[in-house]
Amino acid sequence: MNVIFNHVAIVGLGLIGGSLARDLKEKKLVGKVSAYGRNIERLKAARSLGLVDACYERFEDGIADVDAVVIATPVGMIAEQALALAPYLRQGTIITDVGSVKGPIVSALESRMPEGLSFIGGHPIAGTENSGYEASCAGLFENRVCILTPTRNTDARALELVQSLWAAVGSRVVLMDVETHDKIIAAISHLPHMVAFALVNALVEMKDFEQNILQYSAGGFRDFTRIAASDPVMWRDIALMNRDNLLTTIDFFLRSLGELKDAIQESNGSRLEALFRQSQDARRGI
Amino acid sequence: MNVIFNHVAIVGLGLIGGSLARDLKEKKLVGKVSAYGRNIERLKAARSLGLVDACYERFEDGIADVDAVVIATPVGMIAEQALALAPYLRQGTIITDVGSVKGPIVSALESRMPEGLSFIGGHPIAGTENSGYEASCAGLFENRVCILTPTRNTDARALELVQSLWAAVGSRVVLMDVETHDKIIAAISHLPHMVAFALVNALVEMKDFEQNILQYSAGGFRDFTRIAASDPVMWRDIALMNRDNLLTTIDFFLRSLGELKDAIQESNGSRLEALFRQSQDARRGI
Repeated sequence: MNVIFNHVAIVGLGLIGGSLARDLKEKKLVGKVSAYGRNIERLKAARSLGLVDACYERFEDGIADVDAVVIATPVGMIAEQALALAPYLRQGTIITDVGSVKGPIVSALESRMPEGLSFIGGHPIAGTENSGYEASCAGLFENRVCILTPTRNTDARALELVQSLWAAVGSRVVLMDVETHDKIIAAISHLPHMVAFALVNALVEMKDFEQNILQYSAGGFRDFTRIAASDPVMWRDIALMNRDNLLTTIDFFLRSLGELKDAIQESNGSRLEALFRQSQDARRGI
Repeated sequence: MNVIFNHVAIVGLGLIGGSLARDLKEKKLVGKVSAYGRNIERLKAARSLGLVDACYERFEDGIADVDAVVIATPVGMIAEQALALAPYLRQGTIITDVGSVKGPIVSALESRMPEGLSFIGGHPIAGTENSGYEASCAGLFENRVCILTPTRNTDARALELVQSLWAAVGSRVVLMDVETHDKIIAAISHLPHMVAFALVNALVEMKDFEQNILQYSAGGFRDFTRIAASDPVMWRDIALMNRDNLLTTIDFFLRSLGELKDAIQESNGSRLEALFRQSQDARRGI
């Protein structure tokens, strides 16, 4: 199998960037992987382990001959990082990212990216409640969905190459417009996170218990609230960047919980059973 | 090790009753296990497999010499089953149950149980989103909490025996008054279920998507909504029986989600980060 790119730069060697680097090296999908990040000691350690071939703190260094850059920093920094490194890239270089919100990133970059560079928004749906390089692992993208959000300005060849890259690490690549992506992800990822955060905070607020009630939590509760341990800064940025879609989904959820609450208040057993059954059917259908 | 009871009857051989029967037999904790239930064919199959020693459809049969009865039917039927079988028990027999709401059951039975029988409310916190005998397994109660809710009328020796039984199948037994149990369980189990049901229903209601958005759900969402597949009839009864506590916890949750929503609406990043961090800290503390 031929390599997809001769030289790929990964900016940010956290859960997603670190896992991608491992797969690219292990599966020999690219000729060379260079890592960029603020913590040069950590990058050097990754290089010593053979997980990347080179590492740099500054975009001035070593980036001139890369064919593709994958920006895997926290979502709030992606657009700014892309604009900061763009001047050092040669013509034709492809830039893509892994942020879970696409609207603000794609619009900032489409209007401000220098001529001759291609940006393609990407979102591998593979996050966990853990973040950072320590959580990265080989095979993270296997059997996951990776959404790419081309626009009418997108270069067809660049899109094809980025598709090949994610397909080669085992993902099912889905193309979607930016607005649809941000709505869908608000519903199936961002809303559940807000609900999990709010649920755990509600339990913290119930201070009339004279003991730590979380000690009685069983498996269901633990799984249910696992995502409430997710990174606060990352989720702050996601909530701010996907604000309008998130507010819409929260309102849907509040209506749905309101219906349940009304049925409980009225002791309406048949209504409760119907609402629970709808949920059971939908959940089993996944 | 001596047996704890010579003869135990289990009413309802579902997830909890079936798992308890397996442990009692496997660990030789009791001399004999008899099963009672509506589906006699299923009970006979369990008897053929050696999971119980005898099985009956009618309380008239075989129950006169049992030392303890564990009622493991759906929570809405527990009190009525206990009152139906009580006339066939000999003096001194202990009755306990596994229902996840205790108030209505304990008060019904304390006032109406015939003289000479002891009732002790119990709740092994070991449910899953699956129910029924098919989901039962050995070791289900290992390292789980089992709450018992004695009252001032409770016979001390009966309590001690029921404690021994749950400890012998590996559970940590906690004694608690009925009101505290129902409040705590409303918070850590019943509320999360309502939230999960409402979340899945909210996604079903978002019909403006032209595709099934649940196909994009990743691990976090799946774990988070697993409990939304729980049995609708069982949860209808729980919601009705723990109504007031549940309404109180729903209001706590609505305030907590409201705070998050306000912070998103105001694009208040530092407030959002603080709320997410509180949740992360609490969740990690489990």
